[in-house]
Amino acid sequence: MNSTRYQRGMAKLREIDGEAGEHVVASLADIAPDFAQYLVEFPFGDIYSRPGLDLQHREMAVVAALTAMGNAAPQLRVHIQAALNVGVSRQQIVEIIMQMAVYAGFPAALNGLAAAREVFHQPPAQPMMPG
Amino acid sequence: MNSTRYQRGMAKLREIDGEAGEHVVASLADIAPDFAQYLVEFPFGDIYSRPGLDLQHREMAVVAALTAMGNAAPQLRVHIQAALNVGVSRQQIVEIIMQMAVYAGFPAALNGLAAAREVFHQPPAQPMMPG
Amino acid sequence: MNSTRYQRGMAKLREIDGEAGEHVVASLADIAPDFAQYLVEFPFGDIYSRPGLDLQHREMAVVAALTAMGNAAPQLRVHIQAALNVGVSRQQIVEIIMQMAVYAGFPAALNGLAAAREVFHQPPAQPMMPG
Amino acid sequence: MNSTRYQRGMAKLREIDGEAGEHVVASLADIAPDFAQYLVEFPFGDIYSRPGLDLQHREMAVVAALTAMGNAAPQLRVHIQAALNVGVSRQQIVEIIMQMAVYAGFPAALNGLAAAREVFHQPPAQPMMPG
Amino acid sequence: MNSTRYQRGMAKLREIDGEAGEHVVASLADIAPDFAQYLVEFPFGDIYSRPGLDLQHREMAVVAALTAMGNAAPQLRVHIQAALNVGVSRQQIVEIIMQMAVYAGFPAALNGLAAAREVFHQPPAQPMMPG
Amino acid sequence: MNSTRYQRGMAKLREIDGEAGEHVVASLADIAPDFAQYLVEFPFGDIYSRPGLDLQHREMAVVAALTAMGNAAPQLRVHIQAALNVGVSRQQIVEIIMQMAVYAGFPAALNGLAAAREVFHQPPAQPMMPG
Repeated sequence: MNSTRYQRGMAKLREIDGEAGEHVVASLADIAPDFAQYLVEFPFGDIYSRPGLDLQHREMAVVAALTAMGNAAPQLRVHIQAALNVGVSRQQIVEIIMQMAVYAGFPAALNGLAAAREVFHQPPAQPMMPG
Repeated sequence: MNSTRYQRGMAKLREIDGEAGEHVVASLADIAPDFAQYLVEFPFGDIYSRPGLDLQHREMAVVAALTAMGNAAPQLRVHIQAALNVGVSRQQIVEIIMQMAVYAGFPAALNGLAAAREVFHQPPAQPMMPG
Repeated sequence: MNSTRYQRGMAKLREIDGEAGEHVVASLADIAPDFAQYLVEFPFGDIYSRPGLDLQHREMAVVAALTAMGNAAPQLRVHIQAALNVGVSRQQIVEIIMQMAVYAGFPAALNGLAAAREVFHQPPAQPMMPG
Repeated sequence: MNSTRYQRGMAKLREIDGEAGEHVVASLADIAPDFAQYLVEFPFGDIYSRPGLDLQHREMAVVAALTAMGNAAPQLRVHIQAALNVGVSRQQIVEIIMQMAVYAGFPAALNGLAAAREVFHQPPAQPMMPG
Repeated sequence: MNSTRYQRGMAKLREIDGEAGEHVVASLADIAPDFAQYLVEFPFGDIYSRPGLDLQHREMAVVAALTAMGNAAPQLRVHIQAALNVGVSRQQIVEIIMQMAVYAGFPAALNGLAAAREVFHQPPAQPMMPG
Repeated sequence: MNSTRYQRGMAKLREIDGEAGEHVVASLADIAPDFAQYLVEFPFGDIYSRPGLDLQHREMAVVAALTAMGNAAPQLRVHIQAALNVGVSRQQIVEIIMQMAVYAGFPAALNGLAAAREVFHQPPAQPMMPG
């Protein structure tokens, strides 16, 4: 294990996804523990840790992509929460999902809005970021 | 035709896509002229004209989605140019496409980067926005 | 709001989707009320209201596409019911879904048939069309 | 080889796809001749030969699905021609493709319209069906 | 009905999918009995019965494809079990799913691993193959 | 840069993809050099280097997935060649692609076979593996 990438990745994962991210990592322990390590190291230790695009823009991009693809509902909900965690507003999230109607069709946008409603109405876990 | 939506949409289309957008509209004249009207009115007159998300963020979202979906190469190139037109930097575009490797796989990101290279190396048409 | 498009769209939505359509529109009120308006105006006020293709053929096309895409289960069920509402027969719906095995694979067709079974076995809400 | 299914399939393939269908079958001879047999037998000998949905409706469904999926351009062109061959009008084809903007997004519809333009402007091979 | 293909297909279906396969066939009886026949005859009587690729490799390919497509969760679970039935190891299945992170993104792999956990933890029905 | 992962990844990349892999890495130098590094490190240094699944099975899985997804033609060709490089036979490749007709439809399989024909008929570059 590359300790620097892993530690940087875990810190980034906690900053972005909070408990939901730690839960995903923990849930892999029984079936694919090495995949938990890769998930921390590559997406979070490498990609999300890069300069050149801030976390708000990264999460906007992910909400857009997962809404458009329409085949990863649990991850879409995690990233709608992650977008809120890093400071994207509810209004911005809703606008991004609505925009996907143009590029991936109305069903994709409707299912994205249903995911957003579900996330927005959850009792917030401990907020990950002040403000 | 709803003249307000259409006029607002054409102005927005020109602001975002410049000549490429006008070319798409013109190319529909022979086969589906009403579709050209809808394209101006709904995506541009309705969606892109909304407050609540600025054009840079809208184009970031579209570049992310089209890269991830991987089945609309001509539109991805148009929107990489559109992102540049509204002020998204080359670096931000490349970061968004790289991030899609995590959510849609390396082939989607590689094909997105190839599209970006093609757009970046084109002689710029008249720039749509100063700066 | 463009009242003509909206009114034409609501009438068309009721004709096609009946209560299910009104439910979708109502469900957007809390999270994206403008999207409810667009949903009425563009798909129903613009597209479904066009001459040149009758409603039976439009719904056949939608059942085919949503079965093949395989990532919008709730909308597939709504449109199987809509196809029945506008006069497409159960047999025609089953044939269209079976045909998708050729173009999108057996899993897509099997999941489409499961959706059809679910819709066919529901107690019909008020029928939208005689016969 | 099951001669009844194969013969029925070849007759149906010729009726629907004409020379383009025979070309696809012939093109498989070097790399996967058994696949050519399956292609004749299952889609054409089994599915397209079924009662319960006429050929016009089957081709409408296929044009819708391939437009929406957006990842099989050569087959979309073959089936736009096939739809014409069995009596679907150009107007109906264009309406179906436009409708896909609602369910799969504007890029899918724009690429479908480009395919239709290409097919419509080709010099027709020998027409497969009178009228 | 072509009795040879059907009988060969049913034998192959039982060998691969065991009771789950028979359940799928039975579940089609009310809505699309002919489709049950095609499902036995073409995939199992034709394709899975071919020499040139053994059943372990066929199921590895199917687990990879359904994980990557991400839109057919019930079939993915059936084929993870089928892979076990024909002798693919749990480790090989997990490795294949992990590999899909590279080609279809981490969400596809995470959802594939969740499906594998579900299948691995089910009380085994009657094992289809010794060892 | 993590030199061990990178070196292990480059060795694995050369073993699997030969010159085509090095070409992909080189082609990223101008637009996203860090992405070239990630491509070497994560897919090749981490995933392909794992025990538990041999390279032949990994490439079979990738050919299956890319054929089924149908939206990454250049990568499908690279991996058909890679499968040959690591010892998968032409017959096995053709069988895997044919099998995808069942899971992703005939168009996906037809386009996969066309890619295989193209790769098989290319003059082989220097063979990567004896035998």
